[in-house]
Amino acid sequence: MLIVGELINSTRKAISQAMEQKDKAYLQELARRQVEAGAHILDINAATSSNEIENIQWLADIVQEVVDVPICIDSPSAEAVAAGLARCQRPGMVNSISAEQERWEQMLPLIQKYGAKVVALCMQDGGMPETVDDRLEVAEKLVSGLTRAGVAADDIYLDPLIKPLGVDHNFGLQALETTRLLREKYPQVHVISGLSNISFGLPERRVINRAFLVMSVAMGMDAFILDPLDQAMMSLLAASRALAGQDEYCMDYITAVRAGLVKA
Amino acid sequence: MLIVGELINSTRKAISQAMEQKDKAYLQELARRQVEAGAHILDINAATSSNEIENIQWLADIVQEVVDVPICIDSPSAEAVAAGLARCQRPGMVNSISAEQERWEQMLPLIQKYGAKVVALCMQDGGMPETVDDRLEVAEKLVSGLTRAGVAADDIYLDPLIKPLGVDHNFGLQALETTRLLREKYPQVHVISGLSNISFGLPERRVINRAFLVMSVAMGMDAFILDPLDQAMMSLLAASRALAGQDEYCMDYITAVRAGLVKA
Repeated sequence: MLIVGELINSTRKAISQAMEQKDKAYLQELARRQVEAGAHILDINAATSSNEIENIQWLADIVQEVVDVPICIDSPSAEAVAAGLARCQRPGMVNSISAEQERWEQMLPLIQKYGAKVVALCMQDGGMPETVDDRLEVAEKLVSGLTRAGVAADDIYLDPLIKPLGVDHNFGLQALETTRLLREKYPQVHVISGLSNISFGLPERRVINRAFLVMSVAMGMDAFILDPLDQAMMSLLAASRALAGQDEYCMDYITAVRAGLVKA
Repeated sequence: MLIVGELINSTRKAISQAMEQKDKAYLQELARRQVEAGAHILDINAATSSNEIENIQWLADIVQEVVDVPICIDSPSAEAVAAGLARCQRPGMVNSISAEQERWEQMLPLIQKYGAKVVALCMQDGGMPETVDDRLEVAEKLVSGLTRAGVAADDIYLDPLIKPLGVDHNFGLQALETTRLLREKYPQVHVISGLSNISFGLPERRVINRAFLVMSVAMGMDAFILDPLDQAMMSLLAASRALAGQDEYCMDYITAVRAGLVKA
């Protein structure tokens, strides 16, 4: 199970402000707290700023001053991803590649050069996938293309591109079924997702996000981009791993309870 | 989705005391609150008391004074079940029958006489089932026996008898797989479970119970015996139904949020 901490993201107003004001202490504290809460990798995103290149490098530098985990360079811009990866002190992660031709051609060499893990969106030219089969078709292009290019299956994190439940009440089932089929077809490859799209437009979104997390674990999703400071979420994640048979003797669960990380 | 409120149970000390002291106000308040929180049926259990027959009838009477939902007579004693059913003002539920010969022979006529719904434990003479296949074998005896006896499939609630995750870390998967297969094999029959066995012996049990609830909904479980006053649980249940495609336009979820029943 891989937890990517999502909080240092410039689409969040507090982060965008802290970045503009070079509020290093605030951002470093957020990095530290996410790792303490269980994040294995920290996502950093400066994509909304006018000087993204400079900011992503600054974020990479200050985050790595205070935590030892890898960082995930989150940007649609290959230039920003290249700039961020160049500052990684240990192999990082790229968020994200897709099967869109331009993005593929720009991102792939960077992933190869830096030996990075990669979030691979199940999207190709022509727009968002509609059906489960659309996603499986794009996933096949991504997995075969990436492995042919020398990326280890274990470094690939397929993102099935989850659509909001509020738009169509079958989108939850669609996401879960896609996850199950991807893990069945590519047992060596991971399936990852953010937890905000599913609840977009609905009230009390965190409740939907948490339930979706639990169901996703049951279907084989093994990586999440989430807010590790949401203790109810992290508690349910520990319980979900145990229920899915991924936690021998429930030792990780019990250890997390003792550390105060799991609470009812 | 059927929610059976579990709180009026004499194995809980507060209830046992309230029963001995004939604390009608306390018990009626608990009945009212469970229904307000979303229970469709209220379980009543007087099985730990020395005068079970008298107490189950008293409970049935006072509960039905204040709520309009059916009651579920919860006892291993056919005599107590008969006494409770005799007081039901509308068709009730029996918790429970099993494929054990003596229990089967004593409970079946009562279910037939009163047209009651029934919790059917996947257990037969010889003890607790071990494997998924054991449970499926007993389920087949129960479903075929009950339907031959004139019980409607829609009135049957199979309980797969879930064992504690703390005993074996595969018991979560076993419970989920059993649920999935039972619903696949008997789409007209329901699958029900209490939510306490799974977490027995583990810390922060409610976290395990809540995650198990969410996963169970994904596998097709459609009835739960639970504490409806656990708002985190009920919130996750509403979200789970929506994610499982059981809530068109998410209207039930949104309505529950507006009623203050769902909170992050």
